[in-house]
Amino acid sequence: MATPSRTLFIISDRTGITLEQLVRTLLSQFDDLSFDRMVLPFLDTPAKIDAAIREINTAEKEDGTTPLVFSSIVDESLRSRLKEAKAEVFDIFDTYLPKLSTVIGIPHSDHIGLSHGMGDQSQYDRRVDAVNFALNYDDGSRFKGLGDADLILIGVSRCGKTPTCLYLAMQYAIRAANFPLTEDDFLTGKFPQPLREHRERLFGLTIAPDRLHRIREERRPGSEYASLSQCRREVSAAEDLFRSHAIPFLDSTAVSIEELAIEIMQRVGVQRHFY
Amino acid sequence: MATPSRTLFIISDRTGITLEQLVRTLLSQFDDLSFDRMVLPFLDTPAKIDAAIREINTAEKEDGTTPLVFSSIVDESLRSRLKEAKAEVFDIFDTYLPKLSTVIGIPHSDHIGLSHGMGDQSQYDRRVDAVNFALNYDDGSRFKGLGDADLILIGVSRCGKTPTCLYLAMQYAIRAANFPLTEDDFLTGKFPQPLREHRERLFGLTIAPDRLHRIREERRPGSEYASLSQCRREVSAAEDLFRSHAIPFLDSTAVSIEELAIEIMQRVGVQRHFY
Repeated sequence: MATPSRTLFIISDRTGITLEQLVRTLLSQFDDLSFDRMVLPFLDTPAKIDAAIREINTAEKEDGTTPLVFSSIVDESLRSRLKEAKAEVFDIFDTYLPKLSTVIGIPHSDHIGLSHGMGDQSQYDRRVDAVNFALNYDDGSRFKGLGDADLILIGVSRCGKTPTCLYLAMQYAIRAANFPLTEDDFLTGKFPQPLREHRERLFGLTIAPDRLHRIREERRPGSEYASLSQCRREVSAAEDLFRSHAIPFLDSTAVSIEELAIEIMQRVGVQRHFY
Repeated sequence: MATPSRTLFIISDRTGITLEQLVRTLLSQFDDLSFDRMVLPFLDTPAKIDAAIREINTAEKEDGTTPLVFSSIVDESLRSRLKEAKAEVFDIFDTYLPKLSTVIGIPHSDHIGLSHGMGDQSQYDRRVDAVNFALNYDDGSRFKGLGDADLILIGVSRCGKTPTCLYLAMQYAIRAANFPLTEDDFLTGKFPQPLREHRERLFGLTIAPDRLHRIREERRPGSEYASLSQCRREVSAAEDLFRSHAIPFLDSTAVSIEELAIEIMQRVGVQRHFY
């Protein structure tokens, strides 16, 4: 029996990013859900709310089911307007603010869109600086100034260093450099000289050889570089190097960029300031 | 009068990223809050929950105020264990799942950590591919293969193109290239030849000249490149170019990477699939 279709709306006066993630988390708790999903960001005037209500009501009619609406509209009057839609409305501010306000004993205000806006300019600039740092210190491209890194990721080519560094920079303003481990390092059993003075900031990434093989094949099909035997040899040599120098390391094979980033921050004790 | 200190805990069985953002959104509705904030990710065993409870209870004792705990622990028994802490617990699953379950008419399961995990491998690989694409097509470095771009950002040097492309790639698996507009383009009043065939995917960024001046001064202090007059001239020429070719554009001056990304997707009609 086919499930009737149902439309899910994510409605925000700003980007809707937080709400989108929350909804994703909540819906991951249900199997076999299929929604038509609509994200409607930047709804900050009565006219835009009214247009959204028309879309919601149209979906209700066409689907023959009640749409779900998740909303993070801050403005009180826009919020109550939205409740006229023919939908089941989940409002994150209605849900949490009254109780929070009671517990901490101060009233809440109606600030729109601080959570993914620019916020404090200097904090914002720190994120952009960190992204530039990650780009400048990507793939061992530079040694000078490495002392400014909060963290230096090392590992074989294509094990996930670059996206992880970029994520740490973008979301947490962490200055993360990365260096590939190469044949030379494996032959000598040592880290490149310029890295040795930053030993306490080194963090290793490793990966299952067959996954590495598949990733490298995409890039250079049929090459020695991509061969399973070469991948096996490099991964094993890299792990030996981490172990013999007591460098903490993680396996990126089945772990997302986000999970790697959080786990690394946790392990090296870098402060986690979310922007 | 000094506000008594209070500790806020963010507790998750996985990364805690969603919850961290939700808490940030909620707290942005209160003025002058100051919390000692602790994020405790990956709490997926009774022993780890018990350790967290000890930390919470210690904070309660030391602060003399009730800690706030936001939790996104999925497992029922771990969740009920956590409620023994001397704290005000806000549990996002308790809050939403029963109502959601009723509305959509199916029971919820207990899946841990789908929201920032790797999830579907091929979807995950699309994000990593998009990040690599953004890196390969950063700053006009390559024309060949540009046909694979979902989006091409153009604008003067240092107006925010690179971080925006990386964010679009990382979060939404959008393949975004970027090209700097240069003196040549301004002199001819045309876009570089290789961009012209991708006209419908071009999107402009602009920026206030004085903000651009400050950003460039950080990079090359005292240079002609960074001078206010040069910044004024470039920004004005770039905007003329956008207008005369009817290229949509946004001003990045007071807008975050996230806001730019969402607004651009909205304007060009790129599908917003959050991973």
